[in-house]
Amino acid sequence: MNEPAPLLVVGSVAIDSVRTPLGEVKEVLGGAAVYSSVAASFFTPVRMVGVVGTDFPAAHLHFLRSRGIDLRGLQVVEGRTFRWSGYYDFDINQAHSLDTQLNVFADFRPILPDDYRDTPFVLLANIDPELQLQVLEQVRQPRLTLCDTMNFWIEGKRDALLEVLRRVDVAFMNDAEARQLCGTFSLVAAARRILAMGPRVVVIKKGEHGAVMFRGDSHFSAPSYPLEVVCDPTGAGDTFEGGVIGYLAKTNDLSEENFRRAVVYGSVLASFNVEAFSLDRLRTLTHAEIEARYREFRRIAFFD
Amino acid sequence: MNEPAPLLVVGSVAIDSVRTPLGEVKEVLGGAAVYSSVAASFFTPVRMVGVVGTDFPAAHLHFLRSRGIDLRGLQVVEGRTFRWSGYYDFDINQAHSLDTQLNVFADFRPILPDDYRDTPFVLLANIDPELQLQVLEQVRQPRLTLCDTMNFWIEGKRDALLEVLRRVDVAFMNDAEARQLCGTFSLVAAARRILAMGPRVVVIKKGEHGAVMFRGDSHFSAPSYPLEVVCDPTGAGDTFEGGVIGYLAKTNDLSEENFRRAVVYGSVLASFNVEAFSLDRLRTLTHAEIEARYREFRRIAFFD
Repeated sequence: MNEPAPLLVVGSVAIDSVRTPLGEVKEVLGGAAVYSSVAASFFTPVRMVGVVGTDFPAAHLHFLRSRGIDLRGLQVVEGRTFRWSGYYDFDINQAHSLDTQLNVFADFRPILPDDYRDTPFVLLANIDPELQLQVLEQVRQPRLTLCDTMNFWIEGKRDALLEVLRRVDVAFMNDAEARQLCGTFSLVAAARRILAMGPRVVVIKKGEHGAVMFRGDSHFSAPSYPLEVVCDPTGAGDTFEGGVIGYLAKTNDLSEENFRRAVVYGSVLASFNVEAFSLDRLRTLTHAEIEARYREFRRIAFFD
Repeated sequence: MNEPAPLLVVGSVAIDSVRTPLGEVKEVLGGAAVYSSVAASFFTPVRMVGVVGTDFPAAHLHFLRSRGIDLRGLQVVEGRTFRWSGYYDFDINQAHSLDTQLNVFADFRPILPDDYRDTPFVLLANIDPELQLQVLEQVRQPRLTLCDTMNFWIEGKRDALLEVLRRVDVAFMNDAEARQLCGTFSLVAAARRILAMGPRVVVIKKGEHGAVMFRGDSHFSAPSYPLEVVCDPTGAGDTFEGGVIGYLAKTNDLSEENFRRAVVYGSVLASFNVEAFSLDRLRTLTHAEIEARYREFRRIAFFD
C-alpha cells in the first residue's frame, strides 16, 4: 500500500446561478477547481490554487477546509468573485450560458506557495492555457500532470494549448472538444492525434455515455451509470477529473489497471454530483456510498 | 450445451445506393432482414421472410443461401425490389435519405410457410407494426420474440406499435426513438417506461457509444468499440440485433449472463459490418475473427 500523495488543483472558483428542468439555484458554490478539489478530497490531501473576491462567503471557505483542502494558495482579492449563470433544457447535456462575469478572475495569476511547488500530482482545471503553463513553470518534477480545456481556448489560444499538451501527462476533454481540436469526427482518430501531441493518456468525457481512455495502444470504455434523473450537470466533468486524479494520487500507482479503476472512481463521483444542485450531494457523500456505487459500476459493466 | 434453435427473421430486403465520406456504392444488397439474417447465420439456422421483385439479382439469393439461410419465406413478386438511397456526412451516425421506392414492398404481407410457424426465436425487424402483428398471429408459442421499430412508426402507427410492444419479449430501439416514444430525455426513464409497456428486456442502441440493456432492475452497459474509421453505418443496428438474437438462439439460454454475452456478440458483428459498404465485411468474416474481437471487447471493458 503506497502512501497517499498530495494533489495540487488550479482553476476557477465561482459563484453560480443555475436553472434546470428540476429547479433553480442562485449564488451557489461552483467553479472547476472547487468541484475537482472536493471530489479529490475523498481520496487524498488537496492544495487548491485560485482566486476569490472579498464577497466570497466564509461558509464556503469553511466547507472547503472541512474537506481537508489546503487553501493557502487561494488568493482573496478586493472585488467580486467570478460569477456564472446558465441553464439546461430538455437536453440536459447541453449548458446554455446566460451571463459570465470574470470579476477578480480576469486578472488571476496562479502563484504557488513555495511548498506547493513539490506537489507530486497536479490538476490543471479548465483555465486559460497560458495560466496552465505558468503553473507548469512553477512545479518541480511532478509525478503526474493532468489538464482539461474547453472550446473557447481551442479556438482562441490554440498555440498555448498545444504547448500545454506537449508538457502534460494526461489530457481530459469532452467529445466535442476532442473533435474540434483535431478536426475529425472519429473520437478514436481524435484521441490518437492528441496522444501524438504529447500526453501519454487521453480521457474523453462523453457525459451520459460514460468515458473512454486511450493509453498507447490500449483502450478502455468506462460504463455509463443509469441515472433516471439528472438534477444539475454543472461541474460533472470537473468532479470526474478530480475523482480520477484524486484516486491516482491516493494509490500513487500509475499502472494501466489502476488508471482504469481511477476512471471508474471518477465516474462514481460524477454520478453522485449530478444528483443535486451545486456540490450539495458531495457534502453528504460517504466513503461507503462511493464503494457501493463502484461495485454497482462493476455489475453494470460485467460480462464473461 | 444446448442445441442451436432456428431463428425466423421478418423484414425488408432492399437494394441500396449509399454515399459516405469514404466512397459510394450503387445498387448493392441491403435491407434490415438481410443484415439481421446474415449476422444471425454465424450462430444459428435462419429462416427469412420478405419480398423481392423479379429484378432481384440471383447472385444475392446465392449469397444468402451460401450463409445457410432458408429462403422459402422470401416472396418473389412481379416488379421492382424495394430501393433506398441515402448518404452520411461528417456525423457518420446520421443517415440522410435521398430516395425511398417501396416498389413490391408496398404490398408486402408476411406469409409464413407452415413449418416456419413453430420457429422458437423470432426477430421482427423494423417494418410496419401491423405487419409485425400479422407475424405474431402466425407463430405458435415462440420461445423469444424481439422487435425493432423506427421514428416513422412511432409517429404514424403508435397504437399498432404499442400492441406489438405488449406482445414481444424484447424491444430494440435507438436512443432517439426511445426518447421519442416515451417523451422523455432520460434514457433510463424511457427504458423503464418501455419495460412497463410489455417487454421483459429493452435494448437501447447508441451507435458509436455502444448499447445498454435493461431487464427488470438490472442494467448492462456494453462497451463501444474504438473504430478509427466507419466506412458505412448502413445496417449496423440490424446486424447488431441479428447477432444478439442469433447468439441467443444458438445457445438457447435466456439467462441474464447469456443475454449480456449476446449483446456483446451483436456489438462484435455490428463493429465488423461498418468496416465496409453493404454486407461486404460479413461476406469474408470468420468465426475466429468474431471470437478474437469478442475477447477484445472484454479487454476494453475490463476493470477490477
